Amino acid sequence: MEVRVILVEPKNEENIGAVARVTKNFGFSDLYLVNPPNIGKKAFSVASHASDVLSACKIVNSMEEAIADSAIVAGTTSKPGISVNKHLRMPFFSPQELKKKVEDKRGIVSLLFGREDVGLLNEELMLCEIVVCIPTSPGYPVMNLSHAVAVVLYELRDVGAVSGAVSGAVSGVLPLACLEDKERLFAHIRTFMDEIEYRDYKKEKTALMLRRILGRAELTAREVRTLRGILRKAERKMGEDEP
Amino acid sequence: MEVRVILVEPKNEENIGAVARVTKNFGFSDLYLVNPPNIGKKAFSVASHASDVLSACKIVNSMEEAIADSAIVAGTTSKPGISVNKHLRMPFFSPQELKKKVEDKRGIVSLLFGREDVGLLNEELMLCEIVVCIPTSPGYPVMNLSHAVAVVLYELRDVGAVSGAVSGAVSGVLPLACLEDKERLFAHIRTFMDEIEYRDYKKEKTALMLRRILGRAELTAREVRTLRGILRKAERKMGEDEP
Repeated sequence: MEVRVILVEPKNEENIGAVARVTKNFGFSDLYLVNPPNIGKKAFSVASHASDVLSACKIVNSMEEAIADSAIVAGTTSKPGISVNKHLRMPFFSPQELKKKVEDKRGIVSLLFGREDVGLLNEELMLCEIVVCIPTSPGYPVMNLSHAVAVVLYELRDVGAVSGAVSGAVSGVLPLACLEDKERLFAHIRTFMDEIEYRDYKKEKTALMLRRILGRAELTAREVRTLRGILRKAERKMGEDEP
Repeated sequence: MEVRVILVEPKNEENIGAVARVTKNFGFSDLYLVNPPNIGKKAFSVASHASDVLSACKIVNSMEEAIADSAIVAGTTSKPGISVNKHLRMPFFSPQELKKKVEDKRGIVSLLFGREDVGLLNEELMLCEIVVCIPTSPGYPVMNLSHAVAVVLYELRDVGAVSGAVSGAVSGVLPLACLEDKERLFAHIRTFMDEIEYRDYKKEKTALMLRRILGRAELTAREVRTLRGILRKAERKMGEDEP
């Protein structure tokens, strides 16, 4: 699945620059602008290191041109439907649900974002196959244009082939300690508690507390080794001083 | 769980306005600014209908002031650790993982976002218990400040609501240790390392590792007391044996 970002008649060039930046941040590059304002220095300044995405954006005169070769057309709105009776904005999907709908598909998924002030017009939403609504607070549901793009692309970050490389970067890379090593650490802790003459009646309870704390922390193999090193060092210190 | 957004030395007032807006978009309102620039018309213009959040923001001189009453301190960075050997930025969590860690807790979760150019400094990250990294593309990992806030708040959007609705009803919700108590524990750990003559060259590194492990474990007040009790017991044992 390839992801295309389409801004329909954006008014503010800083927003366009900001959208180019976040498009690149999530590993995408296909940006279409329908009737944008002049794109000048300000836009490039906000785009920062995404000037390549901004330079390569396609400027078209109609939404139809931008979506022509799409497999799925999703339009965003901050005004979801309230009546199941009206189909224009109903049913609507969260960005997460959108991800589920597109992740096992092939082709271009076009994401449409409307004007800063009035969003997508009804006749534009009508051309969309999926209506996407970011779950915002009823107190202030209307997001800044580039923020809305940021949230939707964040959800779709793993969908495209290009961005696929990103997902494994977070926390999955750490070699966690194996159970055996952790059990050895817990046994060591119990021995240590005997050595420091920790009170018998609360030994069980405290040993379990440490198990829980260290369990929650999801220790890496390296951390387990270092923790045991600290215990050994303390034991040596106690031994030294013994008569 | 209450969510607090803290911007550390933001330079650009438009970014501050944009952060105020997205804070309100996701139903939050607690905004702290550490040494911000003058906040004028531009910021309010970008904040749009979130001028109430912007007007009510707290301006402080240090990060310490902003996090003082927090239960959990999470620092964001676009530069995750690459070596399991270094504890400052490792292990790191995705916004989704952060959500899982905080959703059933009570207290204030402080989200720290650094400067537009250099982010959070190492000494600031050191004060954080959890390091959060948004999974971006290696091609351009550095997000615009307000976009980063948007993505993290998007993930945490239900956190306040859920814990608010069930406040007190869930028996598993334990009072977490306050930052002050945890700092006392960390100071105690350092003294203990001196007492056991832990090797100087790795003292800093190991102290930071313990901070990270215990930070991830989200200690309760009771656990902090018990951990300090174990240290005292070991110290007494070492003292006893001394000539």
